[in-house]
Amino acid sequence: MHFSSEQRLRDGVHERGFSIGDIPGMLWTPSSASPTAPVPLILLGHPGGLSRMYPRLAGRARHAAAEGFASATIELPGSGERPAIPTVEQARADLRQAIAAGERPADDTIDRLILPLVDAAVPEWQACLDSVLGLPEIGGPVALSGGVIAVGVRLALAEPRLVAAGLFAGSFVPRAIIDEARRVTIPVHVLLQWDDEGNDRQAALDLFDAFGSAEKTLQANMGGHTGVPTYAGEDAARFFARHLR
Amino acid sequence: MHFSSEQRLRDGVHERGFSIGDIPGMLWTPSSASPTAPVPLILLGHPGGLSRMYPRLAGRARHAAAEGFASATIELPGSGERPAIPTVEQARADLRQAIAAGERPADDTIDRLILPLVDAAVPEWQACLDSVLGLPEIGGPVALSGGVIAVGVRLALAEPRLVAAGLFAGSFVPRAIIDEARRVTIPVHVLLQWDDEGNDRQAALDLFDAFGSAEKTLQANMGGHTGVPTYAGEDAARFFARHLR
Repeated sequence: MHFSSEQRLRDGVHERGFSIGDIPGMLWTPSSASPTAPVPLILLGHPGGLSRMYPRLAGRARHAAAEGFASATIELPGSGERPAIPTVEQARADLRQAIAAGERPADDTIDRLILPLVDAAVPEWQACLDSVLGLPEIGGPVALSGGVIAVGVRLALAEPRLVAAGLFAGSFVPRAIIDEARRVTIPVHVLLQWDDEGNDRQAALDLFDAFGSAEKTLQANMGGHTGVPTYAGEDAARFFARHLR
Repeated sequence: MHFSSEQRLRDGVHERGFSIGDIPGMLWTPSSASPTAPVPLILLGHPGGLSRMYPRLAGRARHAAAEGFASATIELPGSGERPAIPTVEQARADLRQAIAAGERPADDTIDRLILPLVDAAVPEWQACLDSVLGLPEIGGPVALSGGVIAVGVRLALAEPRLVAAGLFAGSFVPRAIIDEARRVTIPVHVLLQWDDEGNDRQAALDLFDAFGSAEKTLQANMGGHTGVPTYAGEDAARFFARHLR
């Protein structure tokens, strides 16, 4: 883990850019964090493109810091300045073509778009976790917040250090990932934008149904893909506070 | 409105039993309520049987009072000490028979069970509202909380004094009521117990989808019919606080 930039935000939050190998990432820690008082950690998922997503990620990180939690994120494989993955780009072109034609994307297209991303991303998030938890001011427990939901499902299944996952059901879900969700047992809080026209609502409901967790909550709201209401964000923040404190 | 009993609960809440004609009811007001500082009102729905439901109703009323809100409830037609409605009792027997046989109850059975209850109950809740809002220490705005969801839908549609409805999707919903929900426009917060085996989950999702409200939230949780998690109750309380303050 190599730190490449550092700044103190107005509210005292310590923001650092880093890289792990060729994967860029960002880390935010509250001013309260210290080796004698290490803080819990939230992994901030996103749809890819760290620079483009920076303002929203920094906003989420500042909210987490106000609760006493550190936040970390890394770039997704094939996104931002990382090299494109040709097979995924082909699947993305096929997806756009299907949507432009007013068709539901084929399961095979969704698989080719999402599954390679899941396979590549999950070990990278685990490596990120190794590095960040190695810092003396970051202690755990660890929760996941948002991002490509299929990545979140696999990470919730594969990573025993995760104690809770807040997921955003706003991207395509391969059927194989719905099957994996049956073996997820950590508490999950799933946000669904009910009127998100580009989303497959039934797949989101099937995924929620599949989770094996004894504590699982689905919260569906209006406002379109990017219009998650403020109160829904607050309810999700309480989910993290319940499981990280 | 005739007051029949009165007591001061330990936390200062003023509890009164009343009747409107032959309909018994209960009213709870926080100690802060006065003619110079009238308080908002929550109508507390329930499945019928005021005496049996009293402990839970009083608990909900005390939580509302802690937020500064009065609460009122009345007995449902055909429940508790009110005369049974023979056609509804016949429908209830048919429903139990279907469930005992492991069958999905026929739409006609659900209609015969629920629609007469909706038709009779809604004007009674409106009369309750007339009486309670006539008290100088109760001002409004008014929200509905829980109860037979079909009654709640019709009341949300028929009663312009309601500004918000928190509904529990835990009882059967006639298709006609789902159609009525399309014309409901006040904010709704719908709780659904995802693993409620006696409930028709798809009908609950269809009902949520139907609401015409620009602000609508579905929160689905685990725990069976009576196992709404504490945090879900807290999220619902914040919904009421948002719309009643």
